Amino acid sequence: MPQLIERRDLDFLLHEVLRLTELTAAARFSMHDRASFDAVLDAAQKIAEEEFLPHAAKLDANEPSFDGSRVALIPEVKQALAAYIDGGFIAASFPIEDGGLQLPYTLTAAAMGYFTAANAGTAGYPFLTAAAANLQRAHGSAAQKARYMRPMLEGRWFGTMCLSEPQAGSSLGDIRTRAIAQADGTYHLVGNKMWISGADHELSENIVHHVLARIDGAPSGVRGISLFIVPKFRVDGEGRIGARNGVHVAGLNHKMGYRGTVNAALNFGESEPAVGELIGEPNHGLAYMFHMMNEARIGVGMGAAALACAGYRYSLDYARHRPQGRPVANKDPDSRPVPIIEHADVRRMLLQQKVYAEGALALCLYCARLVDEQAIAEDEAQRHALHQLLEVLTPIAKSWPSEFGLEANKLAIQVLGGYGYTRDYPLERLYRDNRLNPIHEGTTGIQALDLLGRKVLMANGAAFRLLLARVTATADEAAALPALAEDAEALRAAVAQVAAVTAQLAAGAQRGEIERFLANATAYLEMLGQVVVAWMWLLQAIVAERALASAGDAEQAFYRGKRHACRFFTRYELPKIERLAALLKRFDDTCLTMPADGF
Amino acid sequence: MPQLIERRDLDFLLHEVLRLTELTAAARFSMHDRASFDAVLDAAQKIAEEEFLPHAAKLDANEPSFDGSRVALIPEVKQALAAYIDGGFIAASFPIEDGGLQLPYTLTAAAMGYFTAANAGTAGYPFLTAAAANLQRAHGSAAQKARYMRPMLEGRWFGTMCLSEPQAGSSLGDIRTRAIAQADGTYHLVGNKMWISGADHELSENIVHHVLARIDGAPSGVRGISLFIVPKFRVDGEGRIGARNGVHVAGLNHKMGYRGTVNAALNFGESEPAVGELIGEPNHGLAYMFHMMNEARIGVGMGAAALACAGYRYSLDYARHRPQGRPVANKDPDSRPVPIIEHADVRRMLLQQKVYAEGALALCLYCARLVDEQAIAEDEAQRHALHQLLEVLTPIAKSWPSEFGLEANKLAIQVLGGYGYTRDYPLERLYRDNRLNPIHEGTTGIQALDLLGRKVLMANGAAFRLLLARVTATADEAAALPALAEDAEALRAAVAQVAAVTAQLAAGAQRGEIERFLANATAYLEMLGQVVVAWMWLLQAIVAERALASAGDAEQAFYRGKRHACRFFTRYELPKIERLAALLKRFDDTCLTMPADGF
Repeated sequence: MPQLIERRDLDFLLHEVLRLTELTAAARFSMHDRASFDAVLDAAQKIAEEEFLPHAAKLDANEPSFDGSRVALIPEVKQALAAYIDGGFIAASFPIEDGGLQLPYTLTAAAMGYFTAANAGTAGYPFLTAAAANLQRAHGSAAQKARYMRPMLEGRWFGTMCLSEPQAGSSLGDIRTRAIAQADGTYHLVGNKMWISGADHELSENIVHHVLARIDGAPSGVRGISLFIVPKFRVDGEGRIGARNGVHVAGLNHKMGYRGTVNAALNFGESEPAVGELIGEPNHGLAYMFHMMNEARIGVGMGAAALACAGYRYSLDYARHRPQGRPVANKDPDSRPVPIIEHADVRRMLLQQKVYAEGALALCLYCARLVDEQAIAEDEAQRHALHQLLEVLTPIAKSWPSEFGLEANKLAIQVLGGYGYTRDYPLERLYRDNRLNPIHEGTTGIQALDLLGRKVLMANGAAFRLLLARVTATADEAAALPALAEDAEALRAAVAQVAAVTAQLAAGAQRGEIERFLANATAYLEMLGQVVVAWMWLLQAIVAERALASAGDAEQAFYRGKRHACRFFTRYELPKIERLAALLKRFDDTCLTMPADGF
Repeated sequence: MPQLIERRDLDFLLHEVLRLTELTAAARFSMHDRASFDAVLDAAQKIAEEEFLPHAAKLDANEPSFDGSRVALIPEVKQALAAYIDGGFIAASFPIEDGGLQLPYTLTAAAMGYFTAANAGTAGYPFLTAAAANLQRAHGSAAQKARYMRPMLEGRWFGTMCLSEPQAGSSLGDIRTRAIAQADGTYHLVGNKMWISGADHELSENIVHHVLARIDGAPSGVRGISLFIVPKFRVDGEGRIGARNGVHVAGLNHKMGYRGTVNAALNFGESEPAVGELIGEPNHGLAYMFHMMNEARIGVGMGAAALACAGYRYSLDYARHRPQGRPVANKDPDSRPVPIIEHADVRRMLLQQKVYAEGALALCLYCARLVDEQAIAEDEAQRHALHQLLEVLTPIAKSWPSEFGLEANKLAIQVLGGYGYTRDYPLERLYRDNRLNPIHEGTTGIQALDLLGRKVLMANGAAFRLLLARVTATADEAAALPALAEDAEALRAAVAQVAAVTAQLAAGAQRGEIERFLANATAYLEMLGQVVVAWMWLLQAIVAERALASAGDAEQAFYRGKRHACRFFTRYELPKIERLAALLKRFDDTCLTMPADGF
């Protein structure tokens, strides 16, 4: 069994490319060092391999069931989560004062990769709980943190996010769940929520739902949404669990993949009151939620990248050991078959997986480091710049790994042929799991509108310019290294291309042609994504090229592989932007002008 | 519930584009007319909708099981197949003298589309049986046809093809199953076969396996392979079923999709003799099998296209009826949500599906018509030209629908968002089913080697030139229509591009640079595929454009939609060849030169 994520690669990204230990110069992370970082990853890898991986296929084949009152799961899930909680992973990136380990988010994101790669279904529960706790840490009152956040960080209670409703998936402004103020300061929630992951189970003593709803009389649309805590079991002032609250499963969703994570429709206040507490101010709920969205979306990208890595390593291992066929120039049927990794098209499928999986991983870790840098930034201007970069990169970090990680898993199946299509191998499960990622936490289409419609033009394009400046700096650095001249030149040309396209689009937006400006937003997202991932590969190639001079024999292959993968991206992937740029430059309106009854 | 395949579209392709009734001028098809063709499609549609579709999800959730001796299936499969057999579909394209309906293959291929779109798992059994019967019709002796082919055509016995072995998937030259000649003229087969669809079940009285094996002492490689009939139950000279033969299920394969079609490993002659009969001459087995391969591969493409059509129609229906969100320029939260088909990116996903699904369908039906034309060709030169065209088109007709049909099903899920990811909707099943098609009957990589390594250069490129001449003729015809000038010009330029690339590649092959020549064969397949499907769209657009002048209101939308979809292909899809052509022109060797230990 190959590693789920190649540890050498993770160490390369974290320490050689992203120089993670530099963060320990800041007071916030000063208690850590390389050894403690390594220990965290060692523990994550061990728990993932020993507790998460062994029941992944079983959980997929035995999804959660609902008998009308209880949601049941196979017992291995709870056992694996106990090991995860014991390892301190739920609160790993939380402050020590909250009971956390105060680790950089970059490192915990990398650790998350192991758990998702091993068993995405089981990993869902604590990820959601940490995200919910993070929401409370930022916006909850001291009393709420004491009552709800602490038990979540201790792993005794789990958390959920309740945003969508059956009639309003991507369109949160249309949610209808009502919150009716009570004399005691609480609210009674009434409504139906959909797509709630971790909605119900018996893995934890309580479940803390974080629910978007409208207080009666609130403004229409996104400006009238508030955020509430609605626990499964009511909690008294001392934090003791009391009676069942009026939130109940209406039915489970039976999914293509990610089957181990319960996903359900929830009814609030149907037959008994669903008592909730307001978080923060009324009508600020969506802002609170979106404040956490960058990390949530980087987390989705990280999961998609991890699934891609697992598929890549598995199919690579297979390709090295499966003999079949002969080189194209060898016609001797009596010669021995060669391992399939020797066939050009298998190498192509492996290289494509490598650049997708490791490129996506690099991007998500890069963004995670920006989150850490933002947290320790010493002045407001620096923090603001980091925030802007994150704003513009997040839709890409969410969607590029989701789209191309899925493609990587498709190729992993193809490398194994018929075997890859069977459930005896994990690849078809990884592919089914990864199919979720372009959908949840904002579909690819929604990310595209966010990127082009909001992020690229915000502050007169300041965030976008910051991004291009960083990409250009990397291209300039690489241009000084002869071995990377081709890649550097290609990336410079791509930056110029993207800048020109963006200027043309911005002019269209200024002319008020909003519909045409956004007509090919998804093509824009894909175009900018290719450039950003090309940048990630060039960052890696620079480090690899410099390391080659003094690397020992064993390391030569690793660094040469990185440099070669960058070249593959330059030659096979980056040119995809040409077609997209052409569409965007001419404000192609073919989709808009298709007659509705002509489909 | 929308139609599985839009009948209007099928009629358009069959009758307006392919002018199928012209075939009835030939003696072979002279007993048919438009009315009888329509009746066949009506019956196919009715049986598909009423007998195949209702148990598709149930069969997917309750795959075949094996208790060590029997393979069990849900009873609905047998019932649906009885209706299929009663409808005369197994033998539909067989001569009347064999008990068939002597229908054009084009029409039966279209009918197959309905059954696959409704329920690919159930449809697998009779498709395999017809293919096996077709193999016997071409190469079996009169006695074999009487004993084995007739009961298959009557639907009493089913057939299989046994090619692969566990150690030899794509590499048939390496199969090891032995055939040991007996004194009575029969052979005893000994070996293991893998990936056998329809390998065992109780749906039919007998199962007739068609097995590739080596007669002891045969030459190595593909030149030493013979073809045998090995029935599950032995058959006496009068065609009566006798004792169980020595062919047994070793185990079922549990697949990601296509779950309703039993797929198994088979042991031959493990504990009792597996008695077989040779078909034709010794050592000609692979040639016999490949003689049938064009039709089998067009059949795979047709199935992939049908699954894409079903997903497209389903997601289109959803997009028309699901209200969510508002136009990008509308900021009023109190305005009513619009059907999602009004959003640009949803329209893009629908147009992409339309051009993939209907383009693939057109290509497969076009190839099917070539099969029919070949059967009724009046002189050898004409027959030879048709054969050459089919040879060069078949790898594309197999792989393009498989790759892009899968992509269409991915987009169908995306249109529905979270709903598309659940098993409450058929889309995730269609996507899982379609994932098989790039793998079986020769993977996409194998098709690419077949196309570039054999078909394009054979007979000094004669087949390839025939193809480009046809594409050019269509472009010239379209160039005379002002509404299609842009599409015609783009296709002409693409043909020139492909011709130039091919000439450069051919020169490389002539220099003996075989490895570099074939290094990007898959890119070549994709490039030529885009051009061929662009041609299919232009063929449709010409017919649509001419029909618009006299079409009634109801038909205007249909024809405009076809013309617009062609434009979408021209603008969004055809430009994908640029990147591929560039790779090919420079004999890109990035995949070949990746260090094996650098992955």
